[in-house]
Amino acid sequence: MATTADASLPTLTESVDSWKGSSLLSVTQITPAGLQLLFDVSQGMRQIVRTQGGDDRLQHRLLGTVFYEASTRTSCSFQAAVMRLGGKFIHVDGQGNSSANKKGESLEDTIRCLECYTDATVLRHPVHGSVGRVIQMATKPVLNAGDGVGEHPTQALLDVFTIRDELKITNNDKPKLTVVLLGDLKHGRTVHSLAKLLAQSQMTAQLTLQYCSPPGLEMPQTVQDFVAKYDNVTQQYVTNLAEVVATADVLYVTRIQRERFASDDAYEQVKGSYVVNNEIMSQAKSSMIVLHPLPRVDEIATEVDADPRAAYFRQMENGMFVRMALLALVLGVAQK
Amino acid sequence: MATTADASLPTLTESVDSWKGSSLLSVTQITPAGLQLLFDVSQGMRQIVRTQGGDDRLQHRLLGTVFYEASTRTSCSFQAAVMRLGGKFIHVDGQGNSSANKKGESLEDTIRCLECYTDATVLRHPVHGSVGRVIQMATKPVLNAGDGVGEHPTQALLDVFTIRDELKITNNDKPKLTVVLLGDLKHGRTVHSLAKLLAQSQMTAQLTLQYCSPPGLEMPQTVQDFVAKYDNVTQQYVTNLAEVVATADVLYVTRIQRERFASDDAYEQVKGSYVVNNEIMSQAKSSMIVLHPLPRVDEIATEVDADPRAAYFRQMENGMFVRMALLALVLGVAQK
Amino acid sequence: MATTADASLPTLTESVDSWKGSSLLSVTQITPAGLQLLFDVSQGMRQIVRTQGGDDRLQHRLLGTVFYEASTRTSCSFQAAVMRLGGKFIHVDGQGNSSANKKGESLEDTIRCLECYTDATVLRHPVHGSVGRVIQMATKPVLNAGDGVGEHPTQALLDVFTIRDELKITNNDKPKLTVVLLGDLKHGRTVHSLAKLLAQSQMTAQLTLQYCSPPGLEMPQTVQDFVAKYDNVTQQYVTNLAEVVATADVLYVTRIQRERFASDDAYEQVKGSYVVNNEIMSQAKSSMIVLHPLPRVDEIATEVDADPRAAYFRQMENGMFVRMALLALVLGVAQK
Repeated sequence: MATTADASLPTLTESVDSWKGSSLLSVTQITPAGLQLLFDVSQGMRQIVRTQGGDDRLQHRLLGTVFYEASTRTSCSFQAAVMRLGGKFIHVDGQGNSSANKKGESLEDTIRCLECYTDATVLRHPVHGSVGRVIQMATKPVLNAGDGVGEHPTQALLDVFTIRDELKITNNDKPKLTVVLLGDLKHGRTVHSLAKLLAQSQMTAQLTLQYCSPPGLEMPQTVQDFVAKYDNVTQQYVTNLAEVVATADVLYVTRIQRERFASDDAYEQVKGSYVVNNEIMSQAKSSMIVLHPLPRVDEIATEVDADPRAAYFRQMENGMFVRMALLALVLGVAQK
Repeated sequence: MATTADASLPTLTESVDSWKGSSLLSVTQITPAGLQLLFDVSQGMRQIVRTQGGDDRLQHRLLGTVFYEASTRTSCSFQAAVMRLGGKFIHVDGQGNSSANKKGESLEDTIRCLECYTDATVLRHPVHGSVGRVIQMATKPVLNAGDGVGEHPTQALLDVFTIRDELKITNNDKPKLTVVLLGDLKHGRTVHSLAKLLAQSQMTAQLTLQYCSPPGLEMPQTVQDFVAKYDNVTQQYVTNLAEVVATADVLYVTRIQRERFASDDAYEQVKGSYVVNNEIMSQAKSSMIVLHPLPRVDEIATEVDADPRAAYFRQMENGMFVRMALLALVLGVAQK
Repeated sequence: MATTADASLPTLTESVDSWKGSSLLSVTQITPAGLQLLFDVSQGMRQIVRTQGGDDRLQHRLLGTVFYEASTRTSCSFQAAVMRLGGKFIHVDGQGNSSANKKGESLEDTIRCLECYTDATVLRHPVHGSVGRVIQMATKPVLNAGDGVGEHPTQALLDVFTIRDELKITNNDKPKLTVVLLGDLKHGRTVHSLAKLLAQSQMTAQLTLQYCSPPGLEMPQTVQDFVAKYDNVTQQYVTNLAEVVATADVLYVTRIQRERFASDDAYEQVKGSYVVNNEIMSQAKSSMIVLHPLPRVDEIATEVDADPRAAYFRQMENGMFVRMALLALVLGVAQK
């Protein structure tokens, strides 16, 4: 059963009413059945975009997108999502010389003011805990788009959606699944949330998580402890991608983030060691998929893009569908 | 009767035709009956937003929002306003490295070009007089969103709308009203416009304006002279908020703006002296309202937010309704 | 016949099917009959904007506007164009601290990701050849909004549209035309494209191009060579605007761009020598038109604005109509 991070946060279930008006801080708020609902709605959204571009269920609705940290991809995805449903958005760049920054206004006041104009808020902030703090005082739904070393729940949701979708996993047919997580697992917020959500989602009969990272960039103990609570999950440390790629169903690649290293030298030493290219791909199953939260630098060679198993751009697209579903659910228009 | 600042500016009356196609530089263009029209339309806008989020009367219309000075709040409010009515906007940030800045283009040319794409312009500029200059050559309505030490008419309009609305003032029942203006009254463009508009609006049988400011930051003589022309207005200087708060119907708080002071020391000396907190509130009438143009820093303690007399977030929301009304009027779709 | 710059680029003809899903890198892709189609659709767009503000043929469609170089005018024009047709846009400022810049992502990946959310991309980039490179891998139509010293095709298209429109040129009645190109002809991408498109468009029975530029800023030989292939075009160098203005049908003025000069001194020496004012205008035909890609600085005196032959703001407006037509064509909704 899902453990909600904070007792004051709503639990999001298979009932659409549990989502309406709710904020999303963490994937731990979502029950396995709630996840199923979100993904069903997401698939419906994909169908709508494919056949008619979008619809008008968010007509006259406004989303505030507030980013105190650069994230073109996440902000664009949310903005596209609200527009595909006929809504509009107001973007506040908290990095620039906005009133908030220049005039000493508190984060809470900035959001409280924006809510006077909008129907929901997407918030990204570099300080862990800040989004949770805002949710406590907000009068409209707030969606966490990343809060420092905290969570980035919509990324985890679109990752799991993509795995289910690409591997055709249904609730009636739960597979054994081997997922390799590759790269900087220490700082990668994305892989923390993904490991936890995969375990918690109960979508597999047996899940093997293989952690493959440079020394010093291992998956944090707290994440391992969370995952260890689930009986059907095995966690393994591997040091060589080539050894394990043959058994993988999912290869989840992350950036070795330059900004996480003390020096450029330290970065250059490891960056090449975890690269996915056609040679690696030749050792993998024909049914395996490669995912990446993007942007990538060198960790997936562009030669891999043409491989049908390269699912990262489809994953990207799914991000919009999942965010459309999320917006529709919290704004009470999922069932049009 | 209203005195129009510049004879070439249109007078805005109870006739919707007087607004259609007009620019707004100053509240002095608006007659008392024109104000009543604007506020009636504003209340209609609030009803529309509350019941259905918005409507489509500005479908296919584009607003240009041009800001040569940071003002997230004002730009967001105008943007929300046009979108709630089904319109869209193009935002030009005149502070950044826009063509205008880099290529030596005149302000007039920048606006003239934008008008080739849009139906109306919202303009904020740090130089007093610049918005008026643009209005003289513009081919579409221009709305002043603040020009340096000049006017910020939509702020004054939403302030007066909020006072009328919160205190349930109607034209048939004009009250005696005591308004305390607190803080930096010298530099606060907002309080200058508010004092003038309150006097000019003829909405009170008797108006007492109590100016409460740090030494050296008193209300300018020009504003006092303007107000003094109205027989039913009394102006008083008070030095201690606690002494007058008991009689106030409206307590209008403004920031002691750090950027107006010569040094940080000079700022620190006065900033704490004009703070509204629960202790002050306990001395005020139960019907009094607290207003603030926002953003606030320390001048209203957050403990006051829960007090039902704290009207500043409702005031914020009213800003969108008043701007919706203004856009509808100048674009000729107030009567849908 | 049109020579397509790159054999892999689609040729755009009088058939709407040739435009649907196509990218536009260069005006050389467009046949004379294709140009006629584009301009017919553009005129229809003007009619729609004039009578009803716009329409909804791009409802649910999203345009990505990606600018790695400041160009307020071009980005606003495209944004206005998509919104006038009921669509929406996502803007990515590639200059700022976007993910792309900070995280080392390739231009190709940035565009490929954005395409996951959008239906077409407008791209401006300072490096010549970059837009062409993107077009080769793109999955959705890409419209070149300027690539360094390369092309800026929509500018050339709106320039030629304006000349045809202002001078009432039709395919049935091809005139003799004298066009003076004035200013920095060496660096002015705009005049390069214009000269080529005028020659290639076959809209004149006889075309005389008169190049009038400061020493050292002459029209490049490559452009002259391209134009020289067309039998009915004559190219002339003139050193004095006053000598030729009397015979001009079109006077196309460009900025002497300060940023192109080695020093401010070098700039100051020439900037005043190519100024259009009322005195110059008094020597021109009553049917002549003055064009300018804007922004202007001193090269056209503001006193000329009131002259009915000053067509540069109409030219500006035409930019939106031509871009509306282009978007409608590549997105397959030109014939609504």
